[in-house]
Amino acid sequence: MMSQREMKSLQERVDAITQTIKSGRLWDSIMEMAKYGATANGGVNRLALTETDNAVRIILMEWINRPNYHFFVDAIGNLFIRRDGATPSLDPVMTGSHLDTQPSGGKFDGIYGVLAGLEVFRTLDDLDMATVRPLELAVWANEEGCRFVPGCMGSACFAKPDDLPHWLAITDDESITVAQAVARFHKTLSGIPHRPLGTPVHAYVEAHIEQGPVLENTSATIGIVSGIQGCRDFQVTISGMEAHAGTTPASSRQDAMKTAVLLLRDLYTLMDSAGDECRFTVGAFQVYPNSSSVVPGQVVFNIDLRHPLQSSLTALGNKVIALCDKHTGRCSIRAKELRWRKPVEFSKVLPDLIQNAAHRLKLPKRVLPSGASHDAVNLHLCCPTGMIFVPCEGGISHNEKENAALADLHAGTQVLAEVLYRLAENIP
Amino acid sequence: MMSQREMKSLQERVDAITQTIKSGRLWDSIMEMAKYGATANGGVNRLALTETDNAVRIILMEWINRPNYHFFVDAIGNLFIRRDGATPSLDPVMTGSHLDTQPSGGKFDGIYGVLAGLEVFRTLDDLDMATVRPLELAVWANEEGCRFVPGCMGSACFAKPDDLPHWLAITDDESITVAQAVARFHKTLSGIPHRPLGTPVHAYVEAHIEQGPVLENTSATIGIVSGIQGCRDFQVTISGMEAHAGTTPASSRQDAMKTAVLLLRDLYTLMDSAGDECRFTVGAFQVYPNSSSVVPGQVVFNIDLRHPLQSSLTALGNKVIALCDKHTGRCSIRAKELRWRKPVEFSKVLPDLIQNAAHRLKLPKRVLPSGASHDAVNLHLCCPTGMIFVPCEGGISHNEKENAALADLHAGTQVLAEVLYRLAENIP
Ligand SMILES: [Zn+2]
Ligand SMILES: [Zn+2]
Repeated sequence: MMSQREMKSLQERVDAITQTIKSGRLWDSIMEMAKYGATANGGVNRLALTETDNAVRIILMEWINRPNYHFFVDAIGNLFIRRDGATPSLDPVMTGSHLDTQPSGGKFDGIYGVLAGLEVFRTLDDLDMATVRPLELAVWANEEGCRFVPGCMGSACFAKPDDLPHWLAITDDESITVAQAVARFHKTLSGIPHRPLGTPVHAYVEAHIEQGPVLENTSATIGIVSGIQGCRDFQVTISGMEAHAGTTPASSRQDAMKTAVLLLRDLYTLMDSAGDECRFTVGAFQVYPNSSSVVPGQVVFNIDLRHPLQSSLTALGNKVIALCDKHTGRCSIRAKELRWRKPVEFSKVLPDLIQNAAHRLKLPKRVLPSGASHDAVNLHLCCPTGMIFVPCEGGISHNEKENAALADLHAGTQVLAEVLYRLAENIP
Repeated sequence: MMSQREMKSLQERVDAITQTIKSGRLWDSIMEMAKYGATANGGVNRLALTETDNAVRIILMEWINRPNYHFFVDAIGNLFIRRDGATPSLDPVMTGSHLDTQPSGGKFDGIYGVLAGLEVFRTLDDLDMATVRPLELAVWANEEGCRFVPGCMGSACFAKPDDLPHWLAITDDESITVAQAVARFHKTLSGIPHRPLGTPVHAYVEAHIEQGPVLENTSATIGIVSGIQGCRDFQVTISGMEAHAGTTPASSRQDAMKTAVLLLRDLYTLMDSAGDECRFTVGAFQVYPNSSSVVPGQVVFNIDLRHPLQSSLTALGNKVIALCDKHTGRCSIRAKELRWRKPVEFSKVLPDLIQNAAHRLKLPKRVLPSGASHDAVNLHLCCPTGMIFVPCEGGISHNEKENAALADLHAGTQVLAEVLYRLAENIP
């Protein structure tokens, strides 16, 4: 093994690693994993804790089964692959993501983060390089939240072990509990030692495709994730009076559809003026009785409002409620708040490390909040946390057409390698 | 029989008739009919050409089965009750309406017009009064168009007998054809002579509940129907691009919902400025994929536009198309015209007669177009035609809650009686 003393400096060692990353090996690994649960249209269907999901975890372990690695499972179905550190008593530096997919998911969401971590480990092995701190690759259970609702289950339970009983009781469509599915996973991986939930972590960094179009539209290769935006979800119910479309003059109508349109027009105008970081979506909209010749007596729609800044999210959500009040008149309007999740802002440590690595590697970069939720939200509760985004084609994800460029995947892995190595060599 | 010569004048004879109308008998007849197909919630379910529909026709015939009456059926399932005139060769003066209802219809829609006509005939019988022209009471088949689509079938086929084969081939949900249903009606009324479709009619006047709120809101008892408004129906399809609600900035979206709202807001503003005679309804509205966290990729909605003036209807419909073009940009917009039915304007003869009768009877009156379609639209193709509207509670119709005040039903029957009698005594 080439000792670190033979390296001239930390930077030289970092350069050796980032230059040794093998993007072809990374690509082949992604394509190999995509065979498990492959759909006819080029996507992947690998629901959480199914046989297929368990199978790819075993394959991952087989790929890295060398003497300097150790495997652990925990009570919620997470899998950890630990690479020995020179000082084993130090808390590990962790990377990872998820291997489960949506029912018609793609080849990159989640899997990229796991296999980018694997590629870093393989590269360190190629160079016979040790790190002071241990490194760990986490495969979080049920990130997607399709089979068992909600998602980010494994990381959430890792961050808050007391919630274990709550999670284990959740059932899928066939009344199978998480407890049963995790027991099956444990049985499939029998012999792998169990480890308590919530073991200490020094730092966590996760690579992921952006799942949005910002990097592609701004020609950036590396997204330095500043945090994860918060959301306020509302269900708005507008109640008027059904009436005959032919016989009822406008002056006698209590038209729930018309009220909805006038309210929504004001909401879109408000949100347009709130800047491009604001996300405002009315995606679900129901009209009753939904007959072309009947003035609608009721409209029910959902508002999905997201913003990375807590103050903006609060103010905009309050304006939603105020506009609903303002438009109450002929029809009554009720805005029920379904969810208020505060934004997560990553502490500067990891975003700065990612930014410096991208800068040094001369990669076009951009700071952006994550629009989607990720396991990193939960790790943020445990340790300094960061995320590295790479572009995906057209911003399309959760879709069989999901695609990403090998050069971008390679660049993200280089940044990940540098950040992991610097953290693992840095003993504050 | 009291001869007309014993009467001092036409007006004295008219007064005798209108003062002899028995509103209690009219009410009892309506309530008796409502027993056939009665629903648990006080409404009526009597679909066209069912056994129940056939049964009430037989009851109607039994109620008026006297020597001066003759019954006829025709090939589309209409029933005619003819009261002899002093000069049988003259074309008859006709009144009538329909006895079929919506699946959850009320006690008054259609039935009122038939039984108001019956009450006039009974009153003439009470007074032993003959008329110069014969009088006919028509029960039109399948006005509602629920079991067999579309409606106003019997009157449409009466006005255009060549269309008979087209109508007979229409089927209900159970694949029963109109031909089969009419054959069953003929069998139920076996022995009743058949008459050709489209026999000449001197004039047609139909009493009906308004099915809208205009008379009630303006405290008018008698509606003098000027005609039946025309309609232009559109289906608007807005196509954008599905996107993740959390990750896609507004600047990258092709949000079909937002485009729909901005377009509809302009349409509502336009129609608001078009006056209260304009009816603009968006009653059917579908969002795809209709998930709260997905920016809608497509919205499809229907526009129901009606106006009593041909020029206004044309201009407003053209503006709908122009606004759809104007809002095309991020999303494509396609406006498909589903139907363009020109307004019907009744010639002045009947509306003037109705207006004069209401004036003489000191009944609060109002000229208005009909918002809904009626059999009178088709009779308008055959002869001078008019309609008498009376208020219904809250403008509610096609509903089990449909209700009307006895005093209003009585007043409408008085006007009908005067108009029918003057027409039947007037030989131009
Ligand atoms: Zn993911
Ligand atoms: Zn009717």
